[in-house]
Formats: sequence, C-alpha cells, structure tokens
Amino acid sequence: MPATIKDIAKKVGVNVSTVSRVLNNRGYISDSLREKIERAMIELNYQPNEVARTLFRKKSNMIGIIIPTVAHPFFAELCSHLEDYAYRHQYKVVLCNSQHDRDKELMYLNYLKANQVEGILMGSQTINVAEFSKIALPLVTFDRAISDQIPYVSSDNYEGGRMATELLIEKGCRKIAMITGSLKLPMLSNRRHDAFVEAAKKHGIWYTVLETDDYGFNPDNYEGIIMELFSKYPDIDGIFASSDVIAAHILKICHQLNKKVPSQIKVVGYDGIAFSEATAPPLSTVRQPIREIAELAFDLLMKQINHEPVECVNILPNELKIRQTT
Amino acid sequence: MPATIKDIAKKVGVNVSTVSRVLNNRGYISDSLREKIERAMIELNYQPNEVARTLFRKKSNMIGIIIPTVAHPFFAELCSHLEDYAYRHQYKVVLCNSQHDRDKELMYLNYLKANQVEGILMGSQTINVAEFSKIALPLVTFDRAISDQIPYVSSDNYEGGRMATELLIEKGCRKIAMITGSLKLPMLSNRRHDAFVEAAKKHGIWYTVLETDDYGFNPDNYEGIIMELFSKYPDIDGIFASSDVIAAHILKICHQLNKKVPSQIKVVGYDGIAFSEATAPPLSTVRQPIREIAELAFDLLMKQINHEPVECVNILPNELKIRQTT
Repeated sequence: MPATIKDIAKKVGVNVSTVSRVLNNRGYISDSLREKIERAMIELNYQPNEVARTLFRKKSNMIGIIIPTVAHPFFAELCSHLEDYAYRHQYKVVLCNSQHDRDKELMYLNYLKANQVEGILMGSQTINVAEFSKIALPLVTFDRAISDQIPYVSSDNYEGGRMATELLIEKGCRKIAMITGSLKLPMLSNRRHDAFVEAAKKHGIWYTVLETDDYGFNPDNYEGIIMELFSKYPDIDGIFASSDVIAAHILKICHQLNKKVPSQIKVVGYDGIAFSEATAPPLSTVRQPIREIAELAFDLLMKQINHEPVECVNILPNELKIRQTT
Repeated sequence: MPATIKDIAKKVGVNVSTVSRVLNNRGYISDSLREKIERAMIELNYQPNEVARTLFRKKSNMIGIIIPTVAHPFFAELCSHLEDYAYRHQYKVVLCNSQHDRDKELMYLNYLKANQVEGILMGSQTINVAEFSKIALPLVTFDRAISDQIPYVSSDNYEGGRMATELLIEKGCRKIAMITGSLKLPMLSNRRHDAFVEAAKKHGIWYTVLETDDYGFNPDNYEGIIMELFSKYPDIDGIFASSDVIAAHILKICHQLNKKVPSQIKVVGYDGIAFSEATAPPLSTVRQPIREIAELAFDLLMKQINHEPVECVNILPNELKIRQTT
C-alpha cells in the first residue's frame, strides 16, 4: 500500500489539513514543521497524486507545444531547448505535431485546454486569427504575428535575408536565385524574401524566386525545384535558400551536376541547425538564435501565466556564419 | 460561464449520472439518448474537464517518451512517428529529454507516475535495472534489453553491422575502420560493432575501431576522432559509422582533406534519417525501419495497458541503402 496523506499526518502528529498546506504551499506553516512533514514524506515514500493536486490547485505545471513536425531539425532543436527551460522551471511539455493538418491542430488546442495546460507555445501555420482568439489561454507564437494581443518571437527575418543576399553579391554573384517556402502563408519568414528582392534591386543584380509546396518539408519537392532552376538558368551563380535543409539539397545536386561550390556557384542557408556544420563543404548560413528564441518564448509564457505585462513584438538578431559555400 | 454537466442534464431532461455515463463511456445507454446528450454538449459548447475525468476514470490517455534528446535526428524522427500513432489512438505524448542526466531521468519517471501516465516509452541509457523494475508501469524500451519482463524494440543491429561491413569489403576496401558510440554502455547497438569485427576477421581484412564519448552526440568529439583516424592511418579506404550523423562528419572531413568519396575512401552510415539522402554525395546507409519501430513500440505499450500478453524481444530488419558513398 502506498503511503497516504493520512499516514504522513499520523507520523508527524498533525492534522491532514496541515500536511495539505505543505503539499499545496498555501497558508502559514513554520519552517521546522514544514521540514518535519517533508522528511516524513520521504521516509514513507509518499507519492502525491499530481492529477488530484492539479484539480485542487488549478495548476497543472504543463505546457503544450504545437509545431508542424518535430522531425524537421529546426523544430527539433527548438523543442529540445524549450523542454530544457520548461524542466528548469518544473514544467512538463506535451508535444503536438500538427503535420499542417488544421483539424489536428484544433483538436490539440481543445485537448490542451481541457487538460488545463497553463499555456501554449505555437509554431502553427494553418489556423486563423478568429480561432486563435478563442483559445483564452496564455499563448506565444513563433514566426507569426496574429494580433497585437498575442506575443510572438522570431529572428530578424528581414535583416537575415538582407545579410544573406548581400553576402552573395559581395562575393561576386551576378545572377542569383532564392528558394523559399510558400509565400502564400502569412508567415513573418516571408520577410526574408522581401529583403532578397530589395537587395538584388538595390545592386541592380538579376534575380529569380522559386517557391516550395504550401506546407514544405518535402525533399522530393525541393529537388524538383532545384533541378528546374538549373535547367532553366544554367548560369545561376548564387542561391539563397530559406532553410538549411533546402541548402543541403542544393549542395547535393551541385555535387551530382559537378558544379563546384563556391567557385562556380555560391550557396547561403538560413537557420543554423547543427547539420549546417556537417555539410560538404560546410554551409554559410544565417544562424537563428534558436536557444534564445526558446528561452524568450518560455519566459513570455511564464509572464502571462503570472499575470505580468509582456512585450508583443520580440525580434532577435541573427548571426551570419560565413563558412565554405560562399 | 462555461456549461456544466448539470446544464446538459437539464437541457436533455435526464439525471447528471446519465450524462456522466455518456462522458465516461460506462454502463448501458440507448443510442438515441446518447446522441441527444452529445448534441446538447455541442450546442452548449460543453468542455469536459479532462483532469477531473482522469481522476475519476484513472485513465489519463497520456504516455511519456523519455529519450536522450529530440535534437538528435534519429530520436526526432522516432518521436514524430510515435506522436502520430499516439494521436491516432487518442493518446497524448509528454516529451522528456534526459540529456543523459540520470537525475533528470529519475525525476521524469517519478513525475510521469505521479501524473498517471498510462505507460512509458524509453530510450534511456543511464538508469539501471533495479531502478527500472521499480517503475511498475507499462514500459517499452528501445535498443536496450533490461530484463525478460520488459519488452524492447530494436533494429537487427548485428545483421545491420554485417551488411555494412560486407558492403565495404565487397566494394574492394582492404583497410577498414569503424567509428562507434561508446561500447561501455549496455546498448543493443553494440552488436553493430561485434558484426563489424567478425566480418573483418572472416574476410581477413585489417581493421580498427574508434569510440566516441560516453554519451556521444558531440560533433567536435566526432571530428577529433575522424582527424585522429586519418592522421594515424592515412591509407584507410573504408569506414563504417554507427550513425548517419557521424558519417556526415566523415564526408565533410574527406571533402576538406580532398579524399575522393567513393573512389579513394568508402563510407557507410547507420539509421537512414532523412538527411542521409541530402549529403554530398548521398550516403550509403543501413536504414532502420523508424516508422515500424515506433508503431510496434506503441502497440506493445497499448497491449500492456490493456493487460494483453506481449512478446519481449522485438527485432526488426533493416534495409541496406546503397547510394553514392560506396
């Protein structure tokens, strides 16, 4: 039989309500009595039923993370850092991959509410503003500005796009392309594209833009687009890819077509995931501060949970990593 | 004010206990009455409090996943598939990265028990058999055989190691190396190394073995080992890496040292993560059936939860993907 709250009370010689005050951190209790009760819990191997405590305290110490898929290395790294911050603050993480499926995303939102998670971190791309406003829970989004009430965190997408494009031009590229995720989605990351176009125009450089599928992350789709680009414009000499994963596929196809990187063609990625250091040659990229994004997002969620004021617009600077593909 | 179970009962004209029977799927209730009650729930926008239901039914519909880190692409893909199967069976996933930290792992185990998760999927490498046996919850492990009571799922590590090594030898390699995770840990993946040694001996081929740090996943450590290998044995002509991530770093260093792959040196990886198709050149590898591993592990957990018998030893076949590095 596991020890109950009654066993603890009996051992220490106090009322059950006194033990309950210690468990729930409510009301006055002297330090020495608290210590006695806590020691008794350890000695009797007392395991509080967290579900009952959640119901009682209305505090689950759980948060939900909704992302397109943790199989994508950017979200995997983000998730790993988020779980790390959550753990340090005694929070647990419910992982929800939306797979770009609107029904799944809505189902998860309802589920998370019903289970009294205290807040949600959301990298969603499918649900609309009206649906968001119904959530009525502390919420932080990534790379998407929903309203001026819901805080978001993102890297400085425009400045990142500008740095990448200027790097290609500075290194001598005269005919450049950008391969980007779909521009139809209302994502802040589309600013990378705006910066690319404006930098090319400013320097009077020929450019073209190719978009991936609506809900990207499909290597076959990437490679089709890259092959199409090279067959249409064989003299392209610089490419800015809106993710390191796309950039890796470009390097692979350059290798297959025997296009020398960086002497014949230069490539810059975006994200700065771990793998960007392991490509051959190592990828020049715009490194997002993934750890800092996770830390700030978690912090903004905690502030909302504690009814503290928060900044809604949170844009963090990137770092241009010049490696061997430019 | 959100609708309560009383509001539903009043609207339909039944007792609260009848509504409760529908909510909890217990006892007899006619289809037409069930439908009436469910329609009333939708009309009144009733949100059941899942925490209260968990307490009542002793069923949380939650499982825990404890892995070293979701930032590693193998675990990220495994996790993504697990979440997919869990979702299809109306289960939610609590993500726990142990970061190879024994205290964190034990803390998570206690937390998951206290929160009445129904079972745990575990890719743990640190806690010992005695600690495992205390868990007293349905449990499935990956790549680790704890006891003959706890089911595990793994790829056929020995056969995978044999296929990789035979491929190198068949393609003409005469001086081969293996770079493996630490062999000090009691992991089933060490069988890859056993197969490597036995295949090399069988064919009378010179070989050497290098181990990474105890708790691997450190690119700097990988690259140090690879550089050491090439400086000590510059005429190595084939390498079997025990993960695709290690193999990618080998390809990067071969590129830096101007060693031609596959003409001067051949490389085979293990795992078959998405990125193995995007290396330059595309990596030959032993592809683990990651989706099938996730599906079977989830299925074994469900069977235990439902008190059905389970097989303890579950070894799934790999597929040798011959691409352009051999």
